[in-house]
Amino acid sequence: MTGPADKPADLGEFGRIAKFFAPLAATPGALGLTDDAALVDCPAGERLVVTVDAMVEGVHFLPDDPPDLVARKLVRVNLSDLAAMAARPVGYLLTTALPKSRGDDWLAGFAAGLAQDQAEFGITLLGGDSVSTQGPISLTLTAFGRVADGAEVRRGGARPGDLVFVTGTIGDGALGLEAAQGKLDGVLDPVDVAYLADRYRLPQPRVGLGPRLSGLASAMMDVSDGLVGDLGHICEVSGVAGLIEAGQVPLSAAAARLPDRLATVLTGGDDYELLFTAPPERQAAVQAAAVAAGVPVTVIGRIEAGQGVRVLDPAGGALALTGVGWRHF
Amino acid sequence: MTGPADKPADLGEFGRIAKFFAPLAATPGALGLTDDAALVDCPAGERLVVTVDAMVEGVHFLPDDPPDLVARKLVRVNLSDLAAMAARPVGYLLTTALPKSRGDDWLAGFAAGLAQDQAEFGITLLGGDSVSTQGPISLTLTAFGRVADGAEVRRGGARPGDLVFVTGTIGDGALGLEAAQGKLDGVLDPVDVAYLADRYRLPQPRVGLGPRLSGLASAMMDVSDGLVGDLGHICEVSGVAGLIEAGQVPLSAAAARLPDRLATVLTGGDDYELLFTAPPERQAAVQAAAVAAGVPVTVIGRIEAGQGVRVLDPAGGALALTGVGWRHF
Repeated sequence: MTGPADKPADLGEFGRIAKFFAPLAATPGALGLTDDAALVDCPAGERLVVTVDAMVEGVHFLPDDPPDLVARKLVRVNLSDLAAMAARPVGYLLTTALPKSRGDDWLAGFAAGLAQDQAEFGITLLGGDSVSTQGPISLTLTAFGRVADGAEVRRGGARPGDLVFVTGTIGDGALGLEAAQGKLDGVLDPVDVAYLADRYRLPQPRVGLGPRLSGLASAMMDVSDGLVGDLGHICEVSGVAGLIEAGQVPLSAAAARLPDRLATVLTGGDDYELLFTAPPERQAAVQAAAVAAGVPVTVIGRIEAGQGVRVLDPAGGALALTGVGWRHF
Repeated sequence: MTGPADKPADLGEFGRIAKFFAPLAATPGALGLTDDAALVDCPAGERLVVTVDAMVEGVHFLPDDPPDLVARKLVRVNLSDLAAMAARPVGYLLTTALPKSRGDDWLAGFAAGLAQDQAEFGITLLGGDSVSTQGPISLTLTAFGRVADGAEVRRGGARPGDLVFVTGTIGDGALGLEAAQGKLDGVLDPVDVAYLADRYRLPQPRVGLGPRLSGLASAMMDVSDGLVGDLGHICEVSGVAGLIEAGQVPLSAAAARLPDRLATVLTGGDDYELLFTAPPERQAAVQAAAVAAGVPVTVIGRIEAGQGVRVLDPAGGALALTGVGWRHF
């Protein structure tokens, strides 16, 4: 909550806190944003789950992206990390580094987006820091969740014979960035372009499903760096190998209409879907959890002994990643 | 722990994590930095205290400041916030946004500073995020501490009749910035300039004293925005008035040798000393706690009924803040 005196102009730090952030922090632990730190309760038998993600203008969002959507994406990429641990979200700390050229209008839109997602996900602002920068907007959000002791799902539990599952559809994040940059104009119908751009700008963290997979999933993470690479992380930490059947990877209707999309779908990032493994005997329970959460779940492959990730093309042949894409071998 | 694919070059994100950050995260809750989030235990009867502070190159530190000192300042400004709540530090999450022009050399020095302060303060890295930026270096640290339920000291408890205390010496932070910028060359002896610059670059968070003041201090915060303004925060939240006797404000020998320093001492920031109030009958216990912690504590004023902060000059006359400094009235 504290910081040096060089702050963005206009309302000043304290004015901005009072106008934009205090209304978002109406929980006792936030202490009205008037103290040096915030308090987070953790009931006996539970553990706190903490994660942080940063977003930089020009790198993670576009300068003319609507500020409310920037705020909501920042919230959601962090909630996705909590969901991937099977944790329920509780609240967050926020840091904004803004250039003086970004006035209170930008912050008003940003705060409106935070308010919208606080209501949607049942979370609250707990505190933060506001500083100025001479560079692009830089945002950091620290999210807090809770999970019963031992109920967290980690990356290291995948075992040979497990099935590999994903939620939702894969590839929309990376294709959506291309859509938002105008690269798909004329390639896809404008409705498809808008759909994909929205998927990039506003991920859907699977907060309803994540906690339901505790005790079912043997390993879990969210797809943020790309499907193949992320399954590779699970396999490396678990000491196993992974197999993905490319033809089983679920695509949105918009992505399915795009030619030559396979490399992007398999290696693009920013999907924020859950990627998890579970033994076949739990498949029915996984599907029941998915129905209860209202989130589609698809089996896309399996875990084997060994190491690395293999991808089978729809015809059953192997694909290999090269420096510039994918090739048959 | 997750993030988009556009990362600083050289080792790559995962290489940097493995080389620089994994050695700092040797605690079970960090999960080896391999999961989407970290776990923080909170024993029954305790609460977690959380705070976040950001530092931006060119705003909060100078581009040629040694990276190990930048790291240690980032740690310490956050630990100071925890101390001001009477909490004991536990660990932290770290976010770095680096331009590609800052290579692994900078990060190696930065990580060395983190390691040094982890050892000094008994804390550990729990996780983080590494992203690239096209702007100046932007750093965010989220610190976690623990405090027995109800033992936290907040800002709102000051009562008329309480004494006002500070730790250490005041004004060195702001004067130290001037020293680091070369503005005091020729005004002060080089030894004094170096002393003040070091005080700016490397604050001493009062982590040993803060928790000892639980049950003694009626209100507490750290001096980061300037002594008068910060006491004003305590007074506003507590619904009381504050009186500072300028002649009692403890100065370092270097600061004491500087002419015309009063406005800077009273209103400069970045001291990261503790500012707290306590009833007179607890003064002996406060001094005993200070001796036990090895931190000097000085009474600089008192709390009265009313609102606002008055400053008495050494001769007993009132001082008032103007737009450009202090005047008698």
